[in-house]
Amino acid sequence: MPVFLDATSPDFETAFQALLSAKREDSPDVDAVVAQIIDDVRNRGDAAVIELTAKFDRLELTPETLAFSAQEIADAVAQVGAEDRAALELAAARIRAYHERQMPSDQSWTDEAGATLGWRWSAVSAAGLYVPGGLASYPSSVLMNAIPAKVAGVERLAIVVPTPDGLVNPLVLLAAQLAGVDEVYRIGGAQAVAALAYGTDTIAPVDKITGPGNAFVAAAKRRVFGKVGIDMIAGPSEILVIADKDNDPDWIALDLLSQAEHDESAQSILITDDTAFGQSVAKAVEKRLETLQRRAIAGASWRDFGAIITVRDLDQAAILSNRIAPEHLELCVADPVALSEKTIHAGAIFLGQYTPEAIGDYVGGPNHVLPTARSARFSSGLSVMDFLKRTTLSQMTPEALRAIGPAAEQLAQSESLEAHGLSVTARLNRLNG
Amino acid sequence: MPVFLDATSPDFETAFQALLSAKREDSPDVDAVVAQIIDDVRNRGDAAVIELTAKFDRLELTPETLAFSAQEIADAVAQVGAEDRAALELAAARIRAYHERQMPSDQSWTDEAGATLGWRWSAVSAAGLYVPGGLASYPSSVLMNAIPAKVAGVERLAIVVPTPDGLVNPLVLLAAQLAGVDEVYRIGGAQAVAALAYGTDTIAPVDKITGPGNAFVAAAKRRVFGKVGIDMIAGPSEILVIADKDNDPDWIALDLLSQAEHDESAQSILITDDTAFGQSVAKAVEKRLETLQRRAIAGASWRDFGAIITVRDLDQAAILSNRIAPEHLELCVADPVALSEKTIHAGAIFLGQYTPEAIGDYVGGPNHVLPTARSARFSSGLSVMDFLKRTTLSQMTPEALRAIGPAAEQLAQSESLEAHGLSVTARLNRLNG
Repeated sequence: MPVFLDATSPDFETAFQALLSAKREDSPDVDAVVAQIIDDVRNRGDAAVIELTAKFDRLELTPETLAFSAQEIADAVAQVGAEDRAALELAAARIRAYHERQMPSDQSWTDEAGATLGWRWSAVSAAGLYVPGGLASYPSSVLMNAIPAKVAGVERLAIVVPTPDGLVNPLVLLAAQLAGVDEVYRIGGAQAVAALAYGTDTIAPVDKITGPGNAFVAAAKRRVFGKVGIDMIAGPSEILVIADKDNDPDWIALDLLSQAEHDESAQSILITDDTAFGQSVAKAVEKRLETLQRRAIAGASWRDFGAIITVRDLDQAAILSNRIAPEHLELCVADPVALSEKTIHAGAIFLGQYTPEAIGDYVGGPNHVLPTARSARFSSGLSVMDFLKRTTLSQMTPEALRAIGPAAEQLAQSESLEAHGLSVTARLNRLNG
Repeated sequence: MPVFLDATSPDFETAFQALLSAKREDSPDVDAVVAQIIDDVRNRGDAAVIELTAKFDRLELTPETLAFSAQEIADAVAQVGAEDRAALELAAARIRAYHERQMPSDQSWTDEAGATLGWRWSAVSAAGLYVPGGLASYPSSVLMNAIPAKVAGVERLAIVVPTPDGLVNPLVLLAAQLAGVDEVYRIGGAQAVAALAYGTDTIAPVDKITGPGNAFVAAAKRRVFGKVGIDMIAGPSEILVIADKDNDPDWIALDLLSQAEHDESAQSILITDDTAFGQSVAKAVEKRLETLQRRAIAGASWRDFGAIITVRDLDQAAILSNRIAPEHLELCVADPVALSEKTIHAGAIFLGQYTPEAIGDYVGGPNHVLPTARSARFSSGLSVMDFLKRTTLSQMTPEALRAIGPAAEQLAQSESLEAHGLSVTARLNRLNG
């Protein structure tokens, strides 16, 4: 059973704090092993990657077979059925259309002092995308990572995907093809992250690495951060549903379970202003758990981390939502737009009862790579911005330098940085001399 | 003497690689000490912060005197001379005007399927800004960090600044006042970062921490990352000047020295298409080093890490510039705008000979917190975006769900996530039933 909380009761604050700070994930300490793997790949390149792949994935590779060939990709993609292909194509088109709107524009203007100022956006030259192998090898995640990179204008986009015993998900290769990925390597783990960051004879280094992975991959990304850019370190998935009584309890139950089924560490929370409705949802969850394929995982998540919170009104729901800062937030209320204007700390908001979170996982258009573990307080989901960087531009005329140069000289003097000041003084002396 | 390289010579590539990979900074390993300090502050709050401040800063505080009072700030600010104040006010106004243009806009649209999609930006609720004490206590950095936060709409902005022996730079407090900072604490080091991240009885926790600091501060920021957001981990400063022969060698020398004087680990590089001009600049640097106040620091930086590279033409200069990906890039050539369109990997570009980099440090308008150590390949300078986060929004109508829901069901099935599919199916059954 999940925990039931009443936000109007005197002991609520303590229980809510406990819910917020519950440790949901035991991250094994793999840092030392990962450091060794990265050093090995830096020192021995392809040879190290090939050895580690033989050891962990039981797959014998050569420098020539590290990457999938065009023919291998074509053969695998040919196995995909028409319905899967059509669904993936629809998803790709919608994700691309959404992310194309995110492209920011360059700016340039001349101010009263005569200074021309502005900035220019440019794409990261090369990016690498980690795709988990096995069960968690989700083609949708390939689209969500690769399409923003290509929309941003990344010239070279490489994927690494481990293929234990040589097995690969053809849908992953189709997703890569639809997204315009340039290279696909059949490697994984910390060795794949190291190869992308430092390069080998066969694999050219990239500038940015994104994508989810296990504890080894996460530790490797943290370690190579600085040498390359990385995206966020994702934690277990979360959903918060705020629902009034005018909802079908079974729909809400399924929405809660669609996060719970990801992972035993996932967290699903319902906030409602109607205690009886909360009870009905709890019953509907139990009923669905009787037959759900992934009931072992979803049941554990719901039992250990699930919560149903009753609030006085929707304003109180919004306050709690902002404290939770959920990755996914569903607003199943009469006026979801009005409520969304109060729930400002959330990765993604799904408005109204016809927008189950699963739509956002696949075909809505917005990205499904979102901030977890309350980090929506300060960070955003993956976007084209993650594959762009901004260069600021400034150009002074002699008049502009005369107008604002003396202030720079004054401040340089106050900070005891003489050469800073002199670089302005030397120019002003000529201009005024 | 700096290193002289000729990009047209056969052994250039090896020498250039060595220059790119030179290790300029010995970071002491303070991670264990920092971990202990953070734990101490988490466990004992104010008491730990006060003890550590007595120990490191020789300053006895109480919970009541952790923050500067309004009167203390007013008294300190009253000591600032009129010229310093006017210069700081000009800088603040120009930085604010530039950063106000960075505010991104919300979007919302309805697509052909009937789905309403978009996103909304919102500010981080509370931010903390680390300001170093002592010599590196730069009022300009207070403006560069605090103004973007306030422009973004951060409600609560706290500064921590160590005041060893009780000494504080009145200009730092004036800069804080001009930028609209809400709280100023006289604490520093890892204990200040821990207090901002986890909060104490006196200091409420923040969501994001920015600002430069020493090895202890950098290690503490890395450790609290995830609990709060952080800005980049800044390395030693760098400048690349690309100059043709139609420049005053002394101006270029001063520009190179204005980075070298920051730090013995700073790096100043000149690229020119005229060997004789390169020699003239080298001479001008030596001449200025005879009298420069900070000649010990600037001289060491120039000797150990300085470089003058001769290239065939400006196209080759642009290629090398992109490989260096400098923090600061000055283009002192006949057509700097044309060249800037080729130098895409750089934190900030200064165009033409009347735009010394020092203008950008103080009064240009763009931010002076910029990516170092080649990270301009994948990251940008500080901006209002660092204090904002984006929430994606989506709302399906029944028609939209009918149109795109089946593809979500198909993909959920292919990823073996049954509850994801059922959350769509349950709704479609009702709509179609």
